Amino acid sequence: MKIKQSLTIVKIGGNIIDDAQALTSFLMAYSNIYGPKILVHGGGKSATKTAEQFNLKPEFVDGRRITDAPMLDVAVMVYAGLINKQIVAQLQALGTTAMGFTGADGNLIQSEKRQHNTIDFGYVGDVVTVQTSLLEKLLATDISLVFCAITHDNKGQLLNTNADTIASELAIALSDEYDVNLMYCFEKKGVLLDLNDENSVVKQMTFDYYNELKTAQVIHSGMLPKLDNCFYALSNGVQKISIGDQSQIENTTAQYTTISL
Amino acid sequence: MKIKQSLTIVKIGGNIIDDAQALTSFLMAYSNIYGPKILVHGGGKSATKTAEQFNLKPEFVDGRRITDAPMLDVAVMVYAGLINKQIVAQLQALGTTAMGFTGADGNLIQSEKRQHNTIDFGYVGDVVTVQTSLLEKLLATDISLVFCAITHDNKGQLLNTNADTIASELAIALSDEYDVNLMYCFEKKGVLLDLNDENSVVKQMTFDYYNELKTAQVIHSGMLPKLDNCFYALSNGVQKISIGDQSQIENTTAQYTTISL
Repeated sequence: MKIKQSLTIVKIGGNIIDDAQALTSFLMAYSNIYGPKILVHGGGKSATKTAEQFNLKPEFVDGRRITDAPMLDVAVMVYAGLINKQIVAQLQALGTTAMGFTGADGNLIQSEKRQHNTIDFGYVGDVVTVQTSLLEKLLATDISLVFCAITHDNKGQLLNTNADTIASELAIALSDEYDVNLMYCFEKKGVLLDLNDENSVVKQMTFDYYNELKTAQVIHSGMLPKLDNCFYALSNGVQKISIGDQSQIENTTAQYTTISL
Repeated sequence: MKIKQSLTIVKIGGNIIDDAQALTSFLMAYSNIYGPKILVHGGGKSATKTAEQFNLKPEFVDGRRITDAPMLDVAVMVYAGLINKQIVAQLQALGTTAMGFTGADGNLIQSEKRQHNTIDFGYVGDVVTVQTSLLEKLLATDISLVFCAITHDNKGQLLNTNADTIASELAIALSDEYDVNLMYCFEKKGVLLDLNDENSVVKQMTFDYYNELKTAQVIHSGMLPKLDNCFYALSNGVQKISIGDQSQIENTTAQYTTISL
């Protein structure tokens, strides 16, 4: 058996990005993670706010945002521009050599425009390939990579991609070369049995237990694609996946949810 | 004497960025340049347009834009986000492995907030250091670098920097390791003796001739800082500098202005 180096991939959600203090606190914790690491960030409310200033109205079908051309421009500006570069500048100030990327950069993450029988999702991309060789070269140079949720089709078109998916696809692709520890960081301590009780954290979420909770309708709708994504990644080679708040990367005794098959 | 590899650095102006067809045509020519290369782009009118949509009014003092905090956000969104990533996606589609950067990425270009006795320019940065070792590693990996005109102070603050200066500072810093050919591409065929005559191109602009033309007030005000910048770069090790339109990179018999000491 090949002994692999560890790689930490952390995905942060909108609640951290929308709160300057929470973001700074997270980035301090993140910069202390030892070894090669990748940060993936979503958009937060600033994209919606910017869209409003452009008089664009977000459209949703089945809970999925439809991305028309002006909305894609806003996503690229806010995710790849403002948020990504502010994170990079802060990480550099903390002594972490960081570089911010979209999937278009170096064709690191190639996607294809989503095909659907009835719904045109617009400029939304589903991941097709991850350029592991170039990613590994960058990681070997001690560069911490910061990905926003913008990809491209390698034919010149930028595409909007779900940030959870970016994180899991990077984790899967790099699990051949690394022992990947994938962490989803959001505002709650983990997957909760009772949304009103912060301490009802599921410590170990197995696939069987997940199906049980799903059948019993205990798990909230927004959590379902997140967990499906986690089980998909685990069954495709990712070593360890957890969901929780920032304390999961700071404190070994913290409460959080570990996902396992 | 050390035999150095060639490096081409091309800076494109707003007129190319504002015109989708001109940009595509330029990028096709650019992607055919042999060997390591760096592209530096300015902002164009889209930053001004976006600022208007945010109800921001650009302020100028002595022809220099004052960058307040909301204007900096717009610059980061448009330069580092929209324009930079559209260029990268198009280059990838043309088969050129491209990565888009600000100076904050990997601390590649560190600047400091401009100090001035009477004017507060806001979030405007003057270049302090260029990380040549990391740049050289990236260039050695056959990655074509695409820089927008955003830098940082390495203390967490992004700063707006003149794109001509970014190009010349990169050229100077990399001239120890490379024979640098720095090309400024804009809408005219070169430095013109008569702005109304496209064929009045100065073929060779020496420092003496420049001073003569300056005294005779033949050279347009916007061209003065551009040329000062060129002579500064030449006297700091840059091998070759030219000013002209896109044909200077396509056609060896094209008309353009070569700058020499």
